[in-house]
Amino acid sequence: MKKVVLAFSGGLDTSYCVKYLSEELNLEVYSAIVNTGGFSSDELAEIERRAYALGVKQHLTLDETGDYYNSCIKYLIFGNVLKNNTYPLSVSAERVYQALAIARYAKEIDADYVAHGSTGAGNDQVRFDMIFNIMIPDIQILTPIRDLKLSRQEEIDFLKQHGVEMNFEKAAYSINKGLWGTSVGGKETLTSYGYLPEEAWPTQVTKQNPEEVKLLFQNGELKGINDQQFENSVEAIQKLNEIAAPFGVGRDIHVGDTIIGIKGRVGFEAAAPMVIIKAHHALEKHVLTKWQLYWKDQLAVWYGNLLHEGQFLDPVMRNIEKFLEDTQATVSGTVTVGLAPYRFYVVGIESAHDLMSSKFGSYGEMNNAWTGEDVKGFSKIFGNQTMIYQKVNER
Amino acid sequence: MKKVVLAFSGGLDTSYCVKYLSEELNLEVYSAIVNTGGFSSDELAEIERRAYALGVKQHLTLDETGDYYNSCIKYLIFGNVLKNNTYPLSVSAERVYQALAIARYAKEIDADYVAHGSTGAGNDQVRFDMIFNIMIPDIQILTPIRDLKLSRQEEIDFLKQHGVEMNFEKAAYSINKGLWGTSVGGKETLTSYGYLPEEAWPTQVTKQNPEEVKLLFQNGELKGINDQQFENSVEAIQKLNEIAAPFGVGRDIHVGDTIIGIKGRVGFEAAAPMVIIKAHHALEKHVLTKWQLYWKDQLAVWYGNLLHEGQFLDPVMRNIEKFLEDTQATVSGTVTVGLAPYRFYVVGIESAHDLMSSKFGSYGEMNNAWTGEDVKGFSKIFGNQTMIYQKVNER
Amino acid sequence: MKKVVLAFSGGLDTSYCVKYLSEELNLEVYSAIVNTGGFSSDELAEIERRAYALGVKQHLTLDETGDYYNSCIKYLIFGNVLKNNTYPLSVSAERVYQALAIARYAKEIDADYVAHGSTGAGNDQVRFDMIFNIMIPDIQILTPIRDLKLSRQEEIDFLKQHGVEMNFEKAAYSINKGLWGTSVGGKETLTSYGYLPEEAWPTQVTKQNPEEVKLLFQNGELKGINDQQFENSVEAIQKLNEIAAPFGVGRDIHVGDTIIGIKGRVGFEAAAPMVIIKAHHALEKHVLTKWQLYWKDQLAVWYGNLLHEGQFLDPVMRNIEKFLEDTQATVSGTVTVGLAPYRFYVVGIESAHDLMSSKFGSYGEMNNAWTGEDVKGFSKIFGNQTMIYQKVNER
Amino acid sequence: MKKVVLAFSGGLDTSYCVKYLSEELNLEVYSAIVNTGGFSSDELAEIERRAYALGVKQHLTLDETGDYYNSCIKYLIFGNVLKNNTYPLSVSAERVYQALAIARYAKEIDADYVAHGSTGAGNDQVRFDMIFNIMIPDIQILTPIRDLKLSRQEEIDFLKQHGVEMNFEKAAYSINKGLWGTSVGGKETLTSYGYLPEEAWPTQVTKQNPEEVKLLFQNGELKGINDQQFENSVEAIQKLNEIAAPFGVGRDIHVGDTIIGIKGRVGFEAAAPMVIIKAHHALEKHVLTKWQLYWKDQLAVWYGNLLHEGQFLDPVMRNIEKFLEDTQATVSGTVTVGLAPYRFYVVGIESAHDLMSSKFGSYGEMNNAWTGEDVKGFSKIFGNQTMIYQKVNER
Repeated sequence: MKKVVLAFSGGLDTSYCVKYLSEELNLEVYSAIVNTGGFSSDELAEIERRAYALGVKQHLTLDETGDYYNSCIKYLIFGNVLKNNTYPLSVSAERVYQALAIARYAKEIDADYVAHGSTGAGNDQVRFDMIFNIMIPDIQILTPIRDLKLSRQEEIDFLKQHGVEMNFEKAAYSINKGLWGTSVGGKETLTSYGYLPEEAWPTQVTKQNPEEVKLLFQNGELKGINDQQFENSVEAIQKLNEIAAPFGVGRDIHVGDTIIGIKGRVGFEAAAPMVIIKAHHALEKHVLTKWQLYWKDQLAVWYGNLLHEGQFLDPVMRNIEKFLEDTQATVSGTVTVGLAPYRFYVVGIESAHDLMSSKFGSYGEMNNAWTGEDVKGFSKIFGNQTMIYQKVNER
Repeated sequence: MKKVVLAFSGGLDTSYCVKYLSEELNLEVYSAIVNTGGFSSDELAEIERRAYALGVKQHLTLDETGDYYNSCIKYLIFGNVLKNNTYPLSVSAERVYQALAIARYAKEIDADYVAHGSTGAGNDQVRFDMIFNIMIPDIQILTPIRDLKLSRQEEIDFLKQHGVEMNFEKAAYSINKGLWGTSVGGKETLTSYGYLPEEAWPTQVTKQNPEEVKLLFQNGELKGINDQQFENSVEAIQKLNEIAAPFGVGRDIHVGDTIIGIKGRVGFEAAAPMVIIKAHHALEKHVLTKWQLYWKDQLAVWYGNLLHEGQFLDPVMRNIEKFLEDTQATVSGTVTVGLAPYRFYVVGIESAHDLMSSKFGSYGEMNNAWTGEDVKGFSKIFGNQTMIYQKVNER
Repeated sequence: MKKVVLAFSGGLDTSYCVKYLSEELNLEVYSAIVNTGGFSSDELAEIERRAYALGVKQHLTLDETGDYYNSCIKYLIFGNVLKNNTYPLSVSAERVYQALAIARYAKEIDADYVAHGSTGAGNDQVRFDMIFNIMIPDIQILTPIRDLKLSRQEEIDFLKQHGVEMNFEKAAYSINKGLWGTSVGGKETLTSYGYLPEEAWPTQVTKQNPEEVKLLFQNGELKGINDQQFENSVEAIQKLNEIAAPFGVGRDIHVGDTIIGIKGRVGFEAAAPMVIIKAHHALEKHVLTKWQLYWKDQLAVWYGNLLHEGQFLDPVMRNIEKFLEDTQATVSGTVTVGLAPYRFYVVGIESAHDLMSSKFGSYGEMNNAWTGEDVKGFSKIFGNQTMIYQKVNER
Repeated sequence: MKKVVLAFSGGLDTSYCVKYLSEELNLEVYSAIVNTGGFSSDELAEIERRAYALGVKQHLTLDETGDYYNSCIKYLIFGNVLKNNTYPLSVSAERVYQALAIARYAKEIDADYVAHGSTGAGNDQVRFDMIFNIMIPDIQILTPIRDLKLSRQEEIDFLKQHGVEMNFEKAAYSINKGLWGTSVGGKETLTSYGYLPEEAWPTQVTKQNPEEVKLLFQNGELKGINDQQFENSVEAIQKLNEIAAPFGVGRDIHVGDTIIGIKGRVGFEAAAPMVIIKAHHALEKHVLTKWQLYWKDQLAVWYGNLLHEGQFLDPVMRNIEKFLEDTQATVSGTVTVGLAPYRFYVVGIESAHDLMSSKFGSYGEMNNAWTGEDVKGFSKIFGNQTMIYQKVNER
């Protein structure tokens, strides 16, 4: 009997896949769920229970949270990556990383097939396909949901026929929760118009009194919150999310280009990611040079875009990571962030690497490191070419 | 008697300049203030009164608001320009434009000298110097404040000696108000740490009840607000500011690289600019292609940087403007923005050019324009090179 | 009877297509060849004769040379476009433009199908597919050669069975001749090693005595050669090719990334394109500012890449063209080029817009527009941030 | 008595400086010449002799060739750096590196002053000034030639008055020889028009018979030529120059933007650098992915520009080096180059990392890794957005 590894989430689509792959295609189903920080142990246990109830041969939880942070999220922070200046790539990064783990697992158990439950209309199908094509080109990919184009009701009927009992009710808002943010889709995001209602957001606003929180960065990584030190930045991120999310910060709706060329709109709640990125960026504006800031932006936009489009394994991604990592040598210090309902702001930074050191002259105040004459000379030479251009070409 | 044109603001520094230029250097002072939308007619009249009281030969108000919008602000909107992703370049743009008007005036009246009151520690000196060097290279630049390095008290004493009566008290927060935002400096912004207190912001928060506002864009320009049409986008900007500023939105602190290489920190309140840029960007995300969005960003960052650094007259700026203008052909439609205390968000857009048209398949839903097989083929080819790379280089 | 428009070249593959489409699919074949400057009228007449001999319903020569120059080649010159710094995109540009003409024709005659003879292993299939998908999404694309995967011999056998008489001998080197260069493929280019032998190059070296040629550019376009003026730049390009090609210049081998992710190697002879690009670039280095040169390069690389990949209809291409066109305002003057066997070099330029005007100080000689003090000040301020960085971070 | 370190070349200007600094300013002159691979030991001995003859307190030869290669040239190769696509930065790189060595030396001996002999009209003054300002901000810079604006004759007269005997005749062509190429200036390069005559080039053409040379690259560095291995890439570069220069290859004239805003024109002969860069680039086109090639170009252009402008100590340069180094992991293999009078060309490459492996399908030939259907799907999805754009916006 041939083996198929299935990326399993416990939802309707992948439940259908279990039954379809085992009953119709007569395959031995090895289901696996990749945890990248979005699931509690209770949720994972429930998913495992459901997998076995559906009749899988074996179910595995692949806990990749630490690796995910170290190989991916860390660089999204170093690069302050926000897709189209808006979206922290919550789902994109996670999905790519899940595909990697599934591919490794399929290779390990020498699977004959690998399957995912993506439909034919989104980004995830391409991410799964590409990572699988690249890492395990000899293992065939099965995508029942995409291929069969079934309606929700058809899937439910099929499962019922096969004796499956589960909650078939459709939630008003579909949620994808991960370490780097939660995406929210609903009727408002299906069109170009409409904001999500208060109740749609995963975390409700329960904090009304402003707070300040101190974030300690070491070489670009979040290593402390207020007086608490963290060995593990994953825990720091989770802790910050607990603090910030009840203020309702980090919410927005993004409309972006999918890999398949259509525009897609998605809500997201990403309190910790947004606070971390803004705080990290503020620190960098103090400790990096103008050209470091510029080139980090350039490379980070592409790091984000290529990740979004499933090109995580292109070797240029490793090259970019080396660049980004090297820039973080001086990105250490404390950033204080003010939190209030629906908003946050950077209060200021403290760093031994701060280039806004008053030792070297303050903005708006005269100093001794240079003279007015120096600036006059600078202005003359700095504008020299344009002066010549205007003279030569004046009419 | 030789003529000097002085960029006059009515403050302590430029008041000192009038007296110094006339009394010490024995020059005929032609003071001029350039209005780029930041002054009321009362303020302008008061500045004129003060100029004559100080003894200028002639005072002129150069009203450049319309030109300023058409030659500069318009492109900052087309490009969604935010310096370091934060600051709408409120002062930078204005100062460059003021320098241009002063230079034209000096040329017109055949002045022997041109003067500005900048100190030796900021950006403005370079902007004035450069624009003057480029446009009027044969007219010598005088900069008494920078050259003499006087303390505030020394300036006051000199003015008192020359019989000048004015309010010499220093405001706790220095303000620079313009069409494209107001900058705010105070003791908090002199160091790397500290947020501005509520009372420091030019507009106090007086609106508590959320509102929605509809912004009508035509080829990238704001031409309507709710039901009101504007021939002139300047009026639309001013109207939007009236609506949005009392919510306390568009406030932030920016730390950036000055032209002279030091870091500078400045608060700003820019309600209309921030709302317009975010709304315009949202509309663009719906109507432009991925590569249009990418290249607009690239060029806009440089448009902003070169403007910030006083390089407005480099011909590449005109080339960039052509590009940006051309991208706006389809940037027409309505953007609805939600306003609430200290925050705003884009509710959605309506446009005849919306590429998120449901006619061509919706994100997350199957459609008829392509098949699952098409995407499979796409994924295979799209990842082909990385697949080959990994195969060739696998160990 | 249903109509198919076939992009017809007269070679084996498209001859096969005519027979296959008419005999096997029972379609009315409208063959068309798009001339973009690579064919003589004799060659076009011969191709027409062959088409009718094969039994097409109608054959058309679409002469697009002028439009091709105006809509595409012109911008490749403005941008000095060389793919990977090597290849003038001779075939890429042409193929895209041919696809456009075929698509327009298919629409015009209300065709049911459109067909091309590309195989499944190169760039051309993607260019044809994409342009057709975009311009005529409702007309189905037929690609017999790609679909049937026939060997050369099978195609020949099929044609013979259908009574076709033609020269079935395979040339040692396959040639694709166009206005913007001729590509050459042979056994040497099929692998990573080997240069083309002398006899493989389309133009043999018949000139031994060095010559100088004067190229007159007006707003970036070639409008004169030596004393001869040209209304039409196409004629100027062709004339220059006659002069330069017999020197054996403009030859090289390019290895590049195909759209489908594999590497491909191709020889090319492009005497006029290479001379024009180098001469135009030399002129630009004299008349444009540093940032104009920089941004032209940036945009031109993408113009070339997107064109290469068949994305000519992305609206960003029109935006880039606007930018490039605007930069050419001052790109007028004469460039003298030295020609000798296998090499050419720019002797120098003459232009009213030359920024290397001795009026403004010469490189290496002191002048009066600025002083040593000005440069001292410039150097101090220009290095200010790095000085601060090194001080702050020194150990 | 106060100490001054003088960057000494043995020419007229720096000879003048020795006398001026010692006799007029009464300083103890520590002359130093930095060898970055351009001087023979005979030349260095002669320069030392001359220094002592002029009366310096001490003369030192700082041999920095190895460090220069490792800290700078290596990255110019990794990045295939050619300024404006033309010039290998022969002088720029060298001058910066010389300034660094002089600064270190001045710090080491606790000098009171540091001096260079640059005029006020070129790039070198800025490079020296900036590196000194950054590395030794507390040591004052003396620049007699720039400050005094002496004519050549005045310098000669002064030296004669001080009893100096040397060859005061001016060479028709000024030469600056280094490891990375030799610059040549003469009357032809002072204007925009004129090519250098045959006799002006440092190496005369003495080889007429074509040769092939095999270059072995290991991780981007030249480590072998034909059958000879080199531990030290400096020796490999020098060896290649011996082989290639007598063919007259690597000659050209560059016109570029000086740091001070004027245009400058310079001839150069750089046989080894040009051959290495083209060969290295050819190898990279075979072994790197499309995006690696793209981003290497982007960063390399800036690496070159910032180096050219004396910004070598900006930390972004270290970040870029990390990126470039990481890309070289697979840049190993042999490149065969054909050499003939006045030209060279890449014959082909051999590398275990070649992505043009026939195992994965050849350009122009069908293969089994993908199907025609895959490409159809790819073309459809790849053009999807433009198709939608055209549909939505069609009139």
